[in-house]
Amino acid sequence: MENFIAYNPTTLHFGRDVLRTLGQTVNRYGKKVLLVYGKGSIKKNGLYDEVLKQLESIGAEVYEYGGIRSNPVVQDVDAAAAIGRENMVDVILAVGGGSVIDSAKVISVAIPVEIPAWDFFSRRAMPRSAVPLIAVLTLAATGTEMNQFAVLSNHEAEVKGSIGSPLIFPKHSFLDPQLTIPVPRNYTAYGIADLIAHALEAYFGKGEDATLTDRFVFSIIREAMEYGPALLDDLSNYELRAKIMFAATMALNGMTMYGRASGEWGVHSIGHILSLIYDVPHGASLTIVYPAWMRLLRDRIPHRLAQLGENLFNVRDPEETISRFEDFFRRIECPVRLKEATGDQANPEEIFRVMVSNKAATYVHKLDHDDYRKIIELMM
Amino acid sequence: MENFIAYNPTTLHFGRDVLRTLGQTVNRYGKKVLLVYGKGSIKKNGLYDEVLKQLESIGAEVYEYGGIRSNPVVQDVDAAAAIGRENMVDVILAVGGGSVIDSAKVISVAIPVEIPAWDFFSRRAMPRSAVPLIAVLTLAATGTEMNQFAVLSNHEAEVKGSIGSPLIFPKHSFLDPQLTIPVPRNYTAYGIADLIAHALEAYFGKGEDATLTDRFVFSIIREAMEYGPALLDDLSNYELRAKIMFAATMALNGMTMYGRASGEWGVHSIGHILSLIYDVPHGASLTIVYPAWMRLLRDRIPHRLAQLGENLFNVRDPEETISRFEDFFRRIECPVRLKEATGDQANPEEIFRVMVSNKAATYVHKLDHDDYRKIIELMM
Repeated sequence: MENFIAYNPTTLHFGRDVLRTLGQTVNRYGKKVLLVYGKGSIKKNGLYDEVLKQLESIGAEVYEYGGIRSNPVVQDVDAAAAIGRENMVDVILAVGGGSVIDSAKVISVAIPVEIPAWDFFSRRAMPRSAVPLIAVLTLAATGTEMNQFAVLSNHEAEVKGSIGSPLIFPKHSFLDPQLTIPVPRNYTAYGIADLIAHALEAYFGKGEDATLTDRFVFSIIREAMEYGPALLDDLSNYELRAKIMFAATMALNGMTMYGRASGEWGVHSIGHILSLIYDVPHGASLTIVYPAWMRLLRDRIPHRLAQLGENLFNVRDPEETISRFEDFFRRIECPVRLKEATGDQANPEEIFRVMVSNKAATYVHKLDHDDYRKIIELMM
Repeated sequence: MENFIAYNPTTLHFGRDVLRTLGQTVNRYGKKVLLVYGKGSIKKNGLYDEVLKQLESIGAEVYEYGGIRSNPVVQDVDAAAAIGRENMVDVILAVGGGSVIDSAKVISVAIPVEIPAWDFFSRRAMPRSAVPLIAVLTLAATGTEMNQFAVLSNHEAEVKGSIGSPLIFPKHSFLDPQLTIPVPRNYTAYGIADLIAHALEAYFGKGEDATLTDRFVFSIIREAMEYGPALLDDLSNYELRAKIMFAATMALNGMTMYGRASGEWGVHSIGHILSLIYDVPHGASLTIVYPAWMRLLRDRIPHRLAQLGENLFNVRDPEETISRFEDFFRRIECPVRLKEATGDQANPEEIFRVMVSNKAATYVHKLDHDDYRKIIELMM
């Protein structure tokens, strides 16, 4: 087991109607609130009104930044941070999915400083303080509601970047599975793929003898594989929504990393490139990359693949394990080859070029340029 | 799934030589330190010197309270709190097992008030503030290093009591598995029994459809059952010590309660009574009570027992599942009947009397006086 530090101060409020205590929770941090949300679906489904009612109940002074994109960009963060800074807000309330919450995390550390937020991603600056952040989650997928990470794109730089800091843990996150019921079938499936990928990135990280943590990983993936397909056939089922929402949080709240020195994250790195070039939804990019990545690494990590297959599918053959993953991803109607997501648009040379320029996948299991070419071929 | 709140702000420093950063961590809270420990084994094995060296490195002013008993009593807490209060300490450093850390938790909330600490247990007073607490754990068992609970005895009142408050989460806990290597075989086994019992108390609580949480419970118990016996045959094996220490923390840090409304805790309640009357070690009391409790409840919770057996032993028959637990407890040389721990000393009438006066086991699965008599018989 590798040495590790476990720390996660987020308070998670999980279950039916938990928003009833949102107002009083916000009130513990102050009355000047920066409300951050996406492209307006929360106005259509009544959530916006519900949140405003909670804020009115405490006499809050509300400033708004709507319009966070689903592949969030740093330009929105800079604009929102300016509003928060100018009005000296006490607390940020993020209402939405991973994009909104990730953006709000960066806003929270950008408000106290007068620099472009991208400086945190280019490592020119380090977060030093943060405006408290409270999140209301509407999509089960990224796990950002209970961790210290944020991922943003910078369109100018043709790059996705990530930051990690204990300052950006949300103080509170409100997870009512009812709020995920409007999520359509395809994005529900991408969320299931995303949570499985998060568990796998931890599993393939550095620290292979963290046996109990491996069991937690298998638990999370088996839960998603058992109840994910059922949810897709019954999208308004509260219990199934709750199971997947809870699993998504557990998949990236730190517990899959206990006893490990680092996660792998190579697949995410390559997936981000597919999203960047072809606008492939994040979850769908992962179901394309994982089978290819596992095949590329098959003979380099045979023991890990065998143990994974044994615990998930009761098979030991690595190729059989990879096929089972493909079967599952197909069953939840996610692409397992690039052409299924992009048609004929995908260009191996272009992908190679961006992989090289982004130094993709150089984490625990290092990939060289030959590997890049092989994995691209395996994805096609 | 039941609604729940997840919150655990403790920073866990886990692994080899983590004490190297103890001094600097204490220093973040101040220089006046109340050092709390037990009956002196830390002086024999060098840990006391190592801790003092860390404290000297930051120029700390150290006040000491040694001599916490292995079944800790509130009288020690009152005496230690007086020292802390008089010297206006900034931080408490607890070095020891569950008894020392539980005592230190209560000391931390007793210092700011001039009342007997038992008032917190009798619910005459509520903790309102706490001196920061840092723990160094030397025994894998209770999970107190990462939770908000403390259990103490009051010899005058012939009762064990417990409190729970977010104020008594340790700020930091240092877990170096090397520090548990001196723990003898029998107490190592009691720790394994204790952690399994904690996972079971959660499993038998209110909230049976928290499927992922159930998987976490099975993961913890299977880990303990797989590596516990190996550890007893190889007491100085770091990796095995690490596995059991980590499992013990996970068994009672909150994660086994996600999606549940409450734990069961009936078995602990009865176990406490055996400890109180016959001085049976806590872990040993649990291996006596659990088989009896499961047999008593066998026909009331058949589905839960079947699911447990299926996931742990691949058997569905409840009686077979209970036998397997007994086999395991015997394999780690823990008693499964009262006479194995007390000889002929045990007196059913006396146990019945104390169960009645303590209102034992009236939690999720309510027991009446007839049940008391039956479970006592099953334990004999």
